Order: sequence, then structure tokens, then C-alpha cells
Amino acid sequence: MLHLRSESAPGWGLAALAHLDEILLDHAHCEKKAASTALGLLFRYPEHEVLARPLSALAREELEHFERVLDHVTRRGGRFGRLPPPPYAASLMTPVRTHEPARAVDTLLCCALIEARSCERMQRLHEALQHAEATHDPRADPALRELYGDLLACEARHHGAYLELARVIGGDRSAVDARLQALAQHEAAVLADAPVLARMHARL
Amino acid sequence: MLHLRSESAPGWGLAALAHLDEILLDHAHCEKKAASTALGLLFRYPEHEVLARPLSALAREELEHFERVLDHVTRRGGRFGRLPPPPYAASLMTPVRTHEPARAVDTLLCCALIEARSCERMQRLHEALQHAEATHDPRADPALRELYGDLLACEARHHGAYLELARVIGGDRSAVDARLQALAQHEAAVLADAPVLARMHARL
Repeated sequence: MLHLRSESAPGWGLAALAHLDEILLDHAHCEKKAASTALGLLFRYPEHEVLARPLSALAREELEHFERVLDHVTRRGGRFGRLPPPPYAASLMTPVRTHEPARAVDTLLCCALIEARSCERMQRLHEALQHAEATHDPRADPALRELYGDLLACEARHHGAYLELARVIGGDRSAVDARLQALAQHEAAVLADAPVLARMHARL
Repeated sequence: MLHLRSESAPGWGLAALAHLDEILLDHAHCEKKAASTALGLLFRYPEHEVLARPLSALAREELEHFERVLDHVTRRGGRFGRLPPPPYAASLMTPVRTHEPARAVDTLLCCALIEARSCERMQRLHEALQHAEATHDPRADPALRELYGDLLACEARHHGAYLELARVIGGDRSAVDARLQALAQHEAAVLADAPVLARMHARL
């Protein structure tokens, strides 16, 4: 799915239902972090003019999602606040090469993989919430199910946008695609090693 | 004007017309920096839940402006790229206190003052571009004049938004307003000492 080399454990979605508020808060932080990553790339690479508009638009959309997720946090009686992130994103970035343009390509590919994994996890949450509704589980939350249905489509689109930018910056498409395969393998290993934690990018 | 303690030199707007492309590029960077500052505050103060939505919305709007300004850079035949910033913002921030919540209040007030000065400068650019049109000056650019007319109103609104957030975090309104006066005095001194440079926040 979207170049991922592993599937999340089949039970992740249902297990997540038991920690929905914590995962939702983590999700809010993920959207904020995604905006910050896009903006950070915009600051790092002003000379890659081709990145400017797409990254700015991505950052805006992530902030819009941040606000939407916050609305659900509030609606469910929660509060926004600090939450320690899992090691996923930092671990994912460790093989990023340090010379340019390889560093830019690798960073964009890691962003593409984070979006892909987020998409897969939101798909699981969406299915788990559908299942909760169908089985009259008291944890059903149709508004949240709808949110995940909307957002998973956006994550898939963002995956494509980051991949396209990596191909533009990298130039040699087959080399970029081979690098994507290698980083996707690494992503799967990072997630397999992730701690058991109620986070969007960890294990349950 | 908007709590500023000085007025830009009356000739700044007309002088700026001679460096319009460089100032426009600097303006693009200012909008990007403004988004990054709002997002940075969002990361620094997750416990101030009251800041989350307004800062996210501010960052989104700054990015929208960044993209609009970029469109004008491109339309005028320029390119986005690196441009050294003037010392204004860094100098402005030097009196920010280091203990909380004073640090948050001071930072928000400095942001309010940057928005105020940007508003004043955009007003000058707007007037200079109006004057260029009226006098059939070849540097007239009605689309750019319109942009500045739109954006100066947004800057004034952002000034109010940051000031309001500073008052909410500071609690004691008269203390916050006294601090605003002191920082506005400092802002005027920073601008009076600014280098002669084709930048939104320098002298010409």
C-alpha cells in the first residue's frame, strides 16, 4: 500500500479503540509536526524554487488538519497539551544521506513514507470505528470515523506529492525509486521495532 | 499607528519603488518567517491551549500570503531564492524576558509589533504604487498595489490577534499594555538604527 513494505498488525485498529483519546492527541501533534517539517524544508531549500509552492500548500493543509483534529479532541472532552512522541520519525530519518541533493531526496522520501504509514493507520482506525458502529460498541464515534475517512485520502495524496517532489529534485527517476524501496524497507523495520505505545506510529 | 512609537521616513515608500523586486522577495521571506514564528510558538506552548487554534490559523494565513507574494515575484519575472534578512527581527527580540509567562508575553508582543510595522510599510508601498499610477510612472503595478491594499489590512488584524493573545497569557492587562509601550519604544530604536537596505524592515 503506497510503497509500504509491511502491513500493520491486523488487530492494531481495534486495539487502538481502547486508547482513542491518546491516539487522537498524538494525531494532533503529528499534523503539527507534519506542517513544521514541510515548512522546515521550505526554509532549508529556497534555491529549489520548485518546492516552494507545494511545500507551503502542504504545510497549510497539515495545519488545517491539526485544527480539525483539535476540534475532535475538544468535542470528546479532551484538552490539547504536551505528549511525548514515539521514536518513529527520528529513527526513520537516520539513514538520510548528508550530501545534497541526496539529503533533500531522502528527506522527501521519508516524508512520503510517513504520509503512507499515516494513511494506512487511519484506514485501520476508520475500519475499527466502522466495526464499532456496526456492533453497537459504545466506543463508536461516527464523526471521528468520518474524519479518518477524509484524512486518509489526504495522506495518500500527500504521499504522492512528496514522492513527486523527490523525483523532481532527484532527477534520475529509477535511482529515486530504488532509494524509496530501500527506505520503505527501513521504515518497516523501524515500525517492527517500535515500542508498545498508544501513538499513531507505534505498536499496540 | 497600531501602537508603533515612530513613523517610517516619509520618503520610504517612493525610495522602495526603486528596489521593488528585492523588497518583494524580502516580503516573501517575511511571510514564510511569520508562519514559522507562529508555528514555533505552537510547539513551545502546547500547555497554553488557548494559543493553539489562533496560532495555527495565523500560520496558515501567513503561508497563503507567502504563496500570493511568490505569484507576484514570478509574474514580475523574478525567482524565489535565498536573501539575507536584515537584523530587525533578531534585534527586536533581544529584550524578551527569559522566565515564563513573561517570555511568552514578550514574544507575542514583539510579533504584534512586527505585524504593525509590516502594516505601516505596506501602507507606504500601497501609497507609493498609487502615486506611480497617478503620475504614469513606468514602475506602476496595479496588481501589486492591490496586493498591498489587501495585505496591510491583514497585518493590522494580525497585530490585534497577537496583542489579544499576549493579554490572555499575561492576565494583567495594564502590565501587558505597559510592556507593549516599552517594547514599541525599543522597536522604534531598532528601526532607527537599521542598516540602509532594500528590505521590508530596514531604512532606505
